[in-house]
Amino acid sequence: MNLPVDADRLRADIEANAAFGRVETDDPAAHARTNRTGTETNGAARDRLVERLRDAGLDVAVDAVGNILGTWTPASADPDAAPVVSGSHLDSVPEGGIFDGPLGVYAALEAVRAMRDAGFEPARPVGVVSFTEEEGGTFGNGLLGSAVATGETALDEALALTNDDGETLGEALDRIGYRGSEETLDPSSWDAFYELHVEQDTKLEEAGAAAGVVTTITGITHCEATIDGEANHAGATAMGDRTDALAAASEFVLDVEAAANEVVETASPSAVGTVGSLSVEPNATNVVPGRVAAGVDIRDVESESMEAIVDAARDSLARLERERGVETEFGRPFDVAPTPMSDRLREATHEAAVAADRKAIDLHSGAAHDAMRVAHVTDASLLFAPSRDGISHNPREWTDWDDCAAATEVLAGAMARVAVDE
Amino acid sequence: MNLPVDADRLRADIEANAAFGRVETDDPAAHARTNRTGTETNGAARDRLVERLRDAGLDVAVDAVGNILGTWTPASADPDAAPVVSGSHLDSVPEGGIFDGPLGVYAALEAVRAMRDAGFEPARPVGVVSFTEEEGGTFGNGLLGSAVATGETALDEALALTNDDGETLGEALDRIGYRGSEETLDPSSWDAFYELHVEQDTKLEEAGAAAGVVTTITGITHCEATIDGEANHAGATAMGDRTDALAAASEFVLDVEAAANEVVETASPSAVGTVGSLSVEPNATNVVPGRVAAGVDIRDVESESMEAIVDAARDSLARLERERGVETEFGRPFDVAPTPMSDRLREATHEAAVAADRKAIDLHSGAAHDAMRVAHVTDASLLFAPSRDGISHNPREWTDWDDCAAATEVLAGAMARVAVDE
Repeated sequence: MNLPVDADRLRADIEANAAFGRVETDDPAAHARTNRTGTETNGAARDRLVERLRDAGLDVAVDAVGNILGTWTPASADPDAAPVVSGSHLDSVPEGGIFDGPLGVYAALEAVRAMRDAGFEPARPVGVVSFTEEEGGTFGNGLLGSAVATGETALDEALALTNDDGETLGEALDRIGYRGSEETLDPSSWDAFYELHVEQDTKLEEAGAAAGVVTTITGITHCEATIDGEANHAGATAMGDRTDALAAASEFVLDVEAAANEVVETASPSAVGTVGSLSVEPNATNVVPGRVAAGVDIRDVESESMEAIVDAARDSLARLERERGVETEFGRPFDVAPTPMSDRLREATHEAAVAADRKAIDLHSGAAHDAMRVAHVTDASLLFAPSRDGISHNPREWTDWDDCAAATEVLAGAMARVAVDE
Repeated sequence: MNLPVDADRLRADIEANAAFGRVETDDPAAHARTNRTGTETNGAARDRLVERLRDAGLDVAVDAVGNILGTWTPASADPDAAPVVSGSHLDSVPEGGIFDGPLGVYAALEAVRAMRDAGFEPARPVGVVSFTEEEGGTFGNGLLGSAVATGETALDEALALTNDDGETLGEALDRIGYRGSEETLDPSSWDAFYELHVEQDTKLEEAGAAAGVVTTITGITHCEATIDGEANHAGATAMGDRTDALAAASEFVLDVEAAANEVVETASPSAVGTVGSLSVEPNATNVVPGRVAAGVDIRDVESESMEAIVDAARDSLARLERERGVETEFGRPFDVAPTPMSDRLREATHEAAVAADRKAIDLHSGAAHDAMRVAHVTDASLLFAPSRDGISHNPREWTDWDDCAAATEVLAGAMARVAVDE
């Protein structure tokens, strides 16, 4: 069984969606889009999605946090059966690309249309979902709509989050007409959830694969290290009299990198450790740095290897206190465990890829997506489409239209397989 | 010969000057002052200085860039002889201390009053100078009044510098009444220049010395290094696929520190090398850093040792290009050679210290002061008074009143010795 998708119809949907918040740039290779949750632009993109869902014969519901769910319940389907749902998000980072999010939403819709066009008869309803505020940065830190739907974040807490203008999410959703029913979606009542997303890495490109089947979404820990030395005149303070916070922080950066490399070599090739941010005070060329704050991102498919890197970071700070006389603090404000994807849904995907004669490979995801939240309450699967040079959150993010269609074909086949299972 | 100074009179002057731009803080040990060039506060401090110079019988002249010179020409002095001049500056950094600058100006005035009170008869006129905009940050980068007076900066260029409000220095001086004659001071016509300043280090405290006699003001080089890697998703980019600009920059910071330490151990104990500023792009915890810019400050009394550290910084970048695949750039926007102080004036200072029974030690200055500019055109000497814990450019900067008086006594004796020489 294979379900051919209409590549042009999918492209037209993604291009039409890309027009909402389009940002003109000088780069001819760029396709920039700014679609922040709760803006008029965001409302317009939502309006078009709702229209396209209805055009395809889906019933549309909007929940209390603005999540949109379209449901296709053909005569073959038991309306009380747990649905198979797929989707992603429409919001973007500022000047982000046009595929990150919308591909997953419109591919899900295209999968439903492909089923309908092929006369496919699912035993379960099939749903298309668009989650609110996946990217974060406007209201909270991301994965918000899926966190509320899965009960990880309280609804009233989410609605009270404010944007830079001081407007709450609840007010913004009211304003654009997307504060829906008083209920929230309940993914725990779904039989399965598939999310198709651009890879944001180059493994598919390198393998010449049409689809990536995620085995595990890595856990993520964010750590904050502060290193206090002594700010002093760079000219008047002898080398031996210094407690240079930046020199100490530089050792810390290299220690974190070395610890991650060691874990990669000895334990888990997928482990990563990054000092992504560093702020230096007073940050003047002629002053010995007095204080540095560093932001560390640690991820892996195995908790053990993440902890090994966290321990190495703590050890580094302890050593710097002893050897350089700095004072340090270490915090861990964000910590999410690795999330395995459903084996059942992965198998269905591989079968669909074989049927479609598309190459699919297993890989892990170092980035979090809504599928991570949903996986906490039901079987979930994250699929990747190839992404040119792995560029994302950038106007140069790009997935060829043929690649969009091929991955969507695999998605449709996988959903169909699950939708006929008892 | 010793000239007793009036410690209370000196203190009263410095305290009265500290009231202009006083900043209240919660710290009882703090004495904060903000006196930016060209402000009403700055004008008021200048007005009081002019009044105090005239009270002491000095003729006051204001030059085209706002430098103030008071000249004492008693009957004993040949009015055509090259004068002995001393002074410093009245402007401060934002929330700076009350001694950095004003001590040197009012100590010079107190030295003249001490000469007069003691019936001392100089053969040369004796001058008290206050240079405009020593600190920089309001109009240009510092040492401005002395740079114009010594011809290192063109007058029209200086007057065209603008503050944050877009007002030029010329307009600001007009507004506060300190755009004086069309001429500028000419330090090359002075026989000698002394500047007393707080040490900004702890060598005098540690030695229990009343005065520091600077042998050399170190040269200063500022270098800018930029390191370009590749910004990438911190979760989706494997350790082996990264070109992390911050990890490379961390090696650079440690290489500069190691190079300075090596020069200190093997060649010149006074050498210093500092990476004082580091800016990271995009500087987000979850993004592998793509670009880092580092600001480097290198100083020493010997050009050779400065060059050794500069070479090590360049070598570090070349190594990082080879080993980490980053691209780098290296600039050297600021470079001033070491400036030796006058041996003649240093000898006079040591004689004066012995006569006053005050301990004086030789040391170098790692900070630039107006004396550096003046030394390029005539004999100049920089003296230091002890500064508690070496703190400066900070409300906790402090020099005990007795220490102010003791250093001023040494200054007065040194000036007197030079003022009677043929």
